[in-house]
Amino acid sequence: MSKIRIEEMIKELSRLASDKMYNDDFFLTWDKSDDEIKSTFLVADILRNLREENISTRLFDSGLGISLFRDNSTRTRFSYASACNLLGLEVQDLDEGKSQVAHGETVRETANMISFMADVIGIRDDMYIGKGHTYMQEVSDSVKQGHLDGVLEQRPTLVNLQCDIDHPTQSMSDALHLINEFGGIENLKGKKVAMTWAYSPSYGKPLSVPQGIVGLLTRLGMEVHLAHPEGYEIMPEVEEVARVNAERSGGKFVKSNSMAEAFKDADIVYPKSWAPFAAMEKRTNLYGEGDHDGIKALEQELLAQNAKYKDWECTEELMATTKEGKALYMHCLPADISGVSCKEGEVAASVFDRYRDPLYKEASYKPYIIAAMILLSKCQNPADTLQKMLEKGKRRFDD
Amino acid sequence: MSKIRIEEMIKELSRLASDKMYNDDFFLTWDKSDDEIKSTFLVADILRNLREENISTRLFDSGLGISLFRDNSTRTRFSYASACNLLGLEVQDLDEGKSQVAHGETVRETANMISFMADVIGIRDDMYIGKGHTYMQEVSDSVKQGHLDGVLEQRPTLVNLQCDIDHPTQSMSDALHLINEFGGIENLKGKKVAMTWAYSPSYGKPLSVPQGIVGLLTRLGMEVHLAHPEGYEIMPEVEEVARVNAERSGGKFVKSNSMAEAFKDADIVYPKSWAPFAAMEKRTNLYGEGDHDGIKALEQELLAQNAKYKDWECTEELMATTKEGKALYMHCLPADISGVSCKEGEVAASVFDRYRDPLYKEASYKPYIIAAMILLSKCQNPADTLQKMLEKGKRRFDD
Amino acid sequence: MSKIRIEEMIKELSRLASDKMYNDDFFLTWDKSDDEIKSTFLVADILRNLREENISTRLFDSGLGISLFRDNSTRTRFSYASACNLLGLEVQDLDEGKSQVAHGETVRETANMISFMADVIGIRDDMYIGKGHTYMQEVSDSVKQGHLDGVLEQRPTLVNLQCDIDHPTQSMSDALHLINEFGGIENLKGKKVAMTWAYSPSYGKPLSVPQGIVGLLTRLGMEVHLAHPEGYEIMPEVEEVARVNAERSGGKFVKSNSMAEAFKDADIVYPKSWAPFAAMEKRTNLYGEGDHDGIKALEQELLAQNAKYKDWECTEELMATTKEGKALYMHCLPADISGVSCKEGEVAASVFDRYRDPLYKEASYKPYIIAAMILLSKCQNPADTLQKMLEKGKRRFDD
Repeated sequence: MSKIRIEEMIKELSRLASDKMYNDDFFLTWDKSDDEIKSTFLVADILRNLREENISTRLFDSGLGISLFRDNSTRTRFSYASACNLLGLEVQDLDEGKSQVAHGETVRETANMISFMADVIGIRDDMYIGKGHTYMQEVSDSVKQGHLDGVLEQRPTLVNLQCDIDHPTQSMSDALHLINEFGGIENLKGKKVAMTWAYSPSYGKPLSVPQGIVGLLTRLGMEVHLAHPEGYEIMPEVEEVARVNAERSGGKFVKSNSMAEAFKDADIVYPKSWAPFAAMEKRTNLYGEGDHDGIKALEQELLAQNAKYKDWECTEELMATTKEGKALYMHCLPADISGVSCKEGEVAASVFDRYRDPLYKEASYKPYIIAAMILLSKCQNPADTLQKMLEKGKRRFDD
Repeated sequence: MSKIRIEEMIKELSRLASDKMYNDDFFLTWDKSDDEIKSTFLVADILRNLREENISTRLFDSGLGISLFRDNSTRTRFSYASACNLLGLEVQDLDEGKSQVAHGETVRETANMISFMADVIGIRDDMYIGKGHTYMQEVSDSVKQGHLDGVLEQRPTLVNLQCDIDHPTQSMSDALHLINEFGGIENLKGKKVAMTWAYSPSYGKPLSVPQGIVGLLTRLGMEVHLAHPEGYEIMPEVEEVARVNAERSGGKFVKSNSMAEAFKDADIVYPKSWAPFAAMEKRTNLYGEGDHDGIKALEQELLAQNAKYKDWECTEELMATTKEGKALYMHCLPADISGVSCKEGEVAASVFDRYRDPLYKEASYKPYIIAAMILLSKCQNPADTLQKMLEKGKRRFDD
Repeated sequence: MSKIRIEEMIKELSRLASDKMYNDDFFLTWDKSDDEIKSTFLVADILRNLREENISTRLFDSGLGISLFRDNSTRTRFSYASACNLLGLEVQDLDEGKSQVAHGETVRETANMISFMADVIGIRDDMYIGKGHTYMQEVSDSVKQGHLDGVLEQRPTLVNLQCDIDHPTQSMSDALHLINEFGGIENLKGKKVAMTWAYSPSYGKPLSVPQGIVGLLTRLGMEVHLAHPEGYEIMPEVEEVARVNAERSGGKFVKSNSMAEAFKDADIVYPKSWAPFAAMEKRTNLYGEGDHDGIKALEQELLAQNAKYKDWECTEELMATTKEGKALYMHCLPADISGVSCKEGEVAASVFDRYRDPLYKEASYKPYIIAAMILLSKCQNPADTLQKMLEKGKRRFDD
């Protein structure tokens, strides 16, 4: 892409109001204005194009990007590390095993102790309903206060790397993928997307992906169908968010218990397993009570419940019912592929294989989305900052 | 702070004799001259002010800072990572689990194998009396020899991140906190500090903090009261160090078995739990013999012994007896807070809460103290180096 | 070393044909032409000399060097970290424990998911015959395809940090050590090297070191004697490689079951324990079948078999039979030293002690060899790149 095109994108950015993102966190996409969401997409694309032009996007000569993963992660971990490195920050992981967090430190204290030279903190805490988002807010309040009290020279801003409510770095990457696949955010208006539950032999997958998707895509004027078996409801607050968004954007938010209905004439399908909200709430309480037998029993119960819906699979037959049989298949990966990673799963092998390339491209936006969230929280005039990078033209790889 | 003030501090630094720190390790504060201690405080303050002025303090374009933690750590780990990053070094952690250290490598060999591109090595080894400091010396001797033999291009200098004898990065941070709280090192003369034992339900906390404090503050002309129940003696060699220091500096070193006596009219109080030296020595031997039943028995014995001294708590009543009831409360954190992190502990919740800000500020000096120790061991003319950084004025964050 | 000497080496490099290394992996030394092997030695020496002249060799302003260790490692892990840091890459370790690799991700998918900003991937996978090299090829093919498909902006090149067949970063470091000890690659012609098995109480050491040595040194015109007890054969394909190499280079490849024969008049000796190829193959199959009792039984069997050859030790007596009793003793470290790291082992303590310095120097080449492999895979005109670094003369440590 030519530098002229990059300059055009920077000009476009300068016309959007993203100033409230400065010195602020990124928790939930529905905390952000449409301009702020668009700014994030634009900055991500600009950073990607600068890197493709071999132009350095280092903002920091030194500084730490703290990471705290309370659940396993490959792609999000590497995406966060890539984003920090792209901007010049060094990742320092808070491993709660190695650290003394378990030894009676309050969140407030730990948050400050690790942040003396931290410019950003990325947290993944998606396991327990009602916990992850609350924990991130606690950390944010702690370092905000620490900065006000003169303990921290800078205020580290937070990036939500997946909580119990939303997975903004995922949903934003997914949306940016759609924007580029459909040739612009305008072209998403009226497109039908099926965010459906799908069968998986595994248990207790977070709800934050489907919730993030219906919470974000409804504001792009899309027709979002959420389909799942009875009992697999997502958080009611998030459904309300989707409803309101759809109304405002001229889109739609439809619910059903039929995968077929959702897939019918869909432009995009996102079949994915998740655990029922009510069950996750129950599990959270059982953990709270330390009732391990109760947890085991619940797991068996849920696996049995899942097994009743093995027909919720993304098959060739279902794909054939989508718009011209050519709906774009999406997934946050890793997917449970029937006959490959499990006997019966979320998607037929032939469907998955056909969409491997777009799936990988979908994932490739995450490092840039995270970097954009960081940049917008650090730079008061992001357009000027990016224009300066472009003009300076320092080479990333200087052979 | 204005750049003029920074230049004054640099001038002040240039008048101190710190040349022996060049290419040397930092093991114990009492290995260092008064000028060297003052230089470390000054460099730490200068680095902090440069960073606050958004001026890059990168000394290294590439290079590794090795870390080896033989005990859990959050704040020291992050402080070391922050210090290395601030100077341009990348931290590489020697995880003895992952590595082959356990597989029959001698310390000498490992030390050299990890140091080919290491500029500094930070070690925490505080668990066993008579072991930590010795181990650090072994590592230092190994890499010194490796450098002389032409195996290592540079000599990595060591920073003691806590050993069995001293915790210099802690005591120096604590002292710098005092210097800034009391408006200058001169104002510490004659001030009374109570370094007292306090009850904790936990067991076997290192002695290096109280030892570091009495070993350092006695040379600043302070009146240092060390108070603990009978049987909680610290290492006699360190008491001797404190005695000699106090004499030389015109300070005082007083011992007692009364927390009340120590707190009476104190300007500063530092109530903290530690294990009895004799018991730690015994434990070290039991570990040597692999006598795990013996260790368990000893732990029970010590917990029972601790329990006899639950009245050694920093209460509001005790605080009221300090100078104008306003003594500065200090702790290396995390503290055992009564009714918060434990039923009965080192300090009353209301006291701890009142001092949270100063406690966090106290901790905030550690990254700069560590960076100062590294800089002084690497730069032959630290004042010139810092002046050059100031004049160059490269931005740390360049938006 | 003067900059004039560095310029000469760069000129020498410019006369060698290394263009096929550009954008390619480094799996096996026998995949590479003589010019390519020589280029790697030269670039390693040039990088070392630039660093000794305090000249920065940063190629990258940002970028990741991925590491994946499927076996414990200290020196290779630190060598890789040092090499990446020297060139400006930040290491990001793929810890298969923390990651979701175990959760049904295909190699292809994971390889792409971690590589969006990866410039190089280093892998150690040496445990199972027929697995390591194959796995590395899978990873390489995956990211090559990902790059072609537009998923990855750059193609991350692979560096083999030890597989089941070869250990090129080790054998190349060993060879560079020899080149510098004997004053030039030409002086190695006709020199006799004894690559012999040696007794170790431990079990199942990889074959990749002896295989790498016979596969590489035979092409330098050396007389390579491979000696081991019956039943400790290495992979036949690698023996064939050695035979062909020796013929082409005017060297020799001799096999025997006598340590004495191999040591007789040797210029260089490399006594080291390894497991029999056949047994490793058997173990791989047992692991495949999950037959843990079978594995235990095999281990006992092999330890018993080893014990029959305790006389395969590098003693003073044997050393006395080498060329003028002064053969250069080599080892990849850590060695099993009789009476030090074990009761009876590979080498007598007095022999090992006498050669400690050269052994450490031998190890010191590895970071530069790895950096050279990376640089040659990234720079189309390595000589120009290095000349530019020399002329620019940016300081690595800028005090």
